[in-house]
Amino acid sequence: MEQHEDVGLVKRTTARLSDGREILYFDASDGAVRVLVDPRELPRSVSSSESRYDPVLDEWVGIAGHRQGRTFLPPTDQCPLCPSRPGLHSEIPSPEYDVVVFENRFPSFATDVPDVSPTVDEGGQLFVRQAGAGRCEVVCFTSDHQSSFARLSPDQVRLVMQAWVDRTSELSGLPSVEQVFCFENRGEEIGVTLSHPHGQIYAYPFVTPRTRRMLDSARRHRERTEGNLFADVLAEELRAGTRVVARSEHWTAFVPAAARWPVEVHVYPHRHVPDLPSLTDAERDDFAELYLDVLARGDALYDGPLPYIAAWHQAPVRVDRDLAYLHLQLFSVRRAPGKLKYLAGSESGMGVFINDTTPEAVAARLRELAP
Amino acid sequence: MEQHEDVGLVKRTTARLSDGREILYFDASDGAVRVLVDPRELPRSVSSSESRYDPVLDEWVGIAGHRQGRTFLPPTDQCPLCPSRPGLHSEIPSPEYDVVVFENRFPSFATDVPDVSPTVDEGGQLFVRQAGAGRCEVVCFTSDHQSSFARLSPDQVRLVMQAWVDRTSELSGLPSVEQVFCFENRGEEIGVTLSHPHGQIYAYPFVTPRTRRMLDSARRHRERTEGNLFADVLAEELRAGTRVVARSEHWTAFVPAAARWPVEVHVYPHRHVPDLPSLTDAERDDFAELYLDVLARGDALYDGPLPYIAAWHQAPVRVDRDLAYLHLQLFSVRRAPGKLKYLAGSESGMGVFINDTTPEAVAARLRELAP
Repeated sequence: MEQHEDVGLVKRTTARLSDGREILYFDASDGAVRVLVDPRELPRSVSSSESRYDPVLDEWVGIAGHRQGRTFLPPTDQCPLCPSRPGLHSEIPSPEYDVVVFENRFPSFATDVPDVSPTVDEGGQLFVRQAGAGRCEVVCFTSDHQSSFARLSPDQVRLVMQAWVDRTSELSGLPSVEQVFCFENRGEEIGVTLSHPHGQIYAYPFVTPRTRRMLDSARRHRERTEGNLFADVLAEELRAGTRVVARSEHWTAFVPAAARWPVEVHVYPHRHVPDLPSLTDAERDDFAELYLDVLARGDALYDGPLPYIAAWHQAPVRVDRDLAYLHLQLFSVRRAPGKLKYLAGSESGMGVFINDTTPEAVAARLRELAP
Repeated sequence: MEQHEDVGLVKRTTARLSDGREILYFDASDGAVRVLVDPRELPRSVSSSESRYDPVLDEWVGIAGHRQGRTFLPPTDQCPLCPSRPGLHSEIPSPEYDVVVFENRFPSFATDVPDVSPTVDEGGQLFVRQAGAGRCEVVCFTSDHQSSFARLSPDQVRLVMQAWVDRTSELSGLPSVEQVFCFENRGEEIGVTLSHPHGQIYAYPFVTPRTRRMLDSARRHRERTEGNLFADVLAEELRAGTRVVARSEHWTAFVPAAARWPVEVHVYPHRHVPDLPSLTDAERDDFAELYLDVLARGDALYDGPLPYIAAWHQAPVRVDRDLAYLHLQLFSVRRAPGKLKYLAGSESGMGVFINDTTPEAVAARLRELAP
């Protein structure tokens, strides 16, 4: 089961958990030795995931009935993302780790899902479905339960990036996978059930609705102007300046002109690349510094750590890779101390976001909050 | 200011609140007399609403910076939606009412918004904006603070429907309005700040993103099959039967085959009509009965009243009225007793909904829960 590789400056060690799920250690030091044997006797998890096509909204939806029973806010001393120790057999058999990735025990998409009939209720042509073939992984950013992404060192962020790059490349090679999504949900306010600093990776069996919409816009923009939409948006934001939060040699962070969320920052590389594996080492180093700066500003906005979603928008695996432009979208439902933005009738029913702040005011506030 | 009209079987009385906002009483009895003078001295509200076009997602977003200070969970004895009484001057001057509608004091879209430059940061072509011209109204379903929509009588529901019909017709006549949206947000779980039974009406200055997507799908479906997409979906659901929750002479309630939310029921009229004003009296009577049945099933699902959003999907005012098909979408974030569905990375970042239940299981459960 065990396998060691050098991935750039990183040592990668892979193994299997007792129920067959893969686990991958990413270590900064070549000398790191990890305990790979999982002493638990976990039943092989069964995933019934399927994707159903909604003919009215022209989108795929994931149906994952097996996820109802998943872990919900366990006590801290039972954290499944901490390293194992005497008395605790967590998801990570090793007593130490730097960054570790493993397959989600309750995946929305999985590699071993059962085949399904191509139509829901045989005979109908409108309700199409397919197996929820794909993969969902958990990324533990650090073994320190009390830390957060914002408190990682730049070197630790670089190690997390190496894991994202490795997973994007490898998951893109699975025949069923059409798009790889690296993201972090942070805070109970958005339903995070485990407080240990971690993110997730979804390898979807279709191009996601948001990405399809972005690429459709980019295609129309190219037909009209011959330019790349995202590059032109970035140039326009730099020209206007009023919504720029921070910039470095290779990256710019700005609040978009039509921001939907009370806090929303997009981080664009200055060079047009489709995905994380396409970044140079210098760009990766630089991102670590800039992103930590932006996260510190976010945490300083209110009276406590900012709940947020951080979403990497990468090109699909097979289509429109020339149109796509890698960027990170960081956004929060926190609209004031003690107050959240809810997606109610207008947002959830009609898709019309109402933002109770102006993007320029939020950008000005974030600029002031220099870490 | 005062004006009385007979609207079908309903008496409609209109007046102005002290800051100039319109208020409309819909009464079941011709003999109802309402107190119309608002004794408060409210400052004229100022709305800075604007709509900004997002060139990446090809959608309009509402920017309403003046809404940050809006009323947030006032104590029950200060409810602004209860009738006025000695010691309380609420938004409704009259000491009694059946159904009342008034302009929202903190509107996302308003009729008297300032003009804005057509571009954000003059000179750029990518960031387009327009005044947030439209109108937002509040609909109080009953004067009884402790009631709920589910506990209205069928006659009361009919009166609410008369108000929806009246407002849809009148707001559709405003030159800036492109779509009228009647909806109810119910429950603190989705951010409702006032517990008095009420809904809202948004008159948007653009066709909403969800409606555009639905109509694009309907257009493609018609080109391919010559049929109406929604009529064909309804026929297919009736044929399959596995997701039908309840039906009556003129309406069918079903869980859609690709439901996004843990509880989601769509209520379709059997006749293809574009909007609420197009319904016959018989269809309106029948809806009141069926919808109360569906709401009762929803409230019986868990250990308390179901938090929900109820959204009426109506045709746009000016375009594609032949493609659109009136229907109600009722959905909830409650996925289990004490547990909510959150829109985290996959949903909010990528637009991919993951449903932790199967539509067929939810429909079967709702069928069992006969009121």
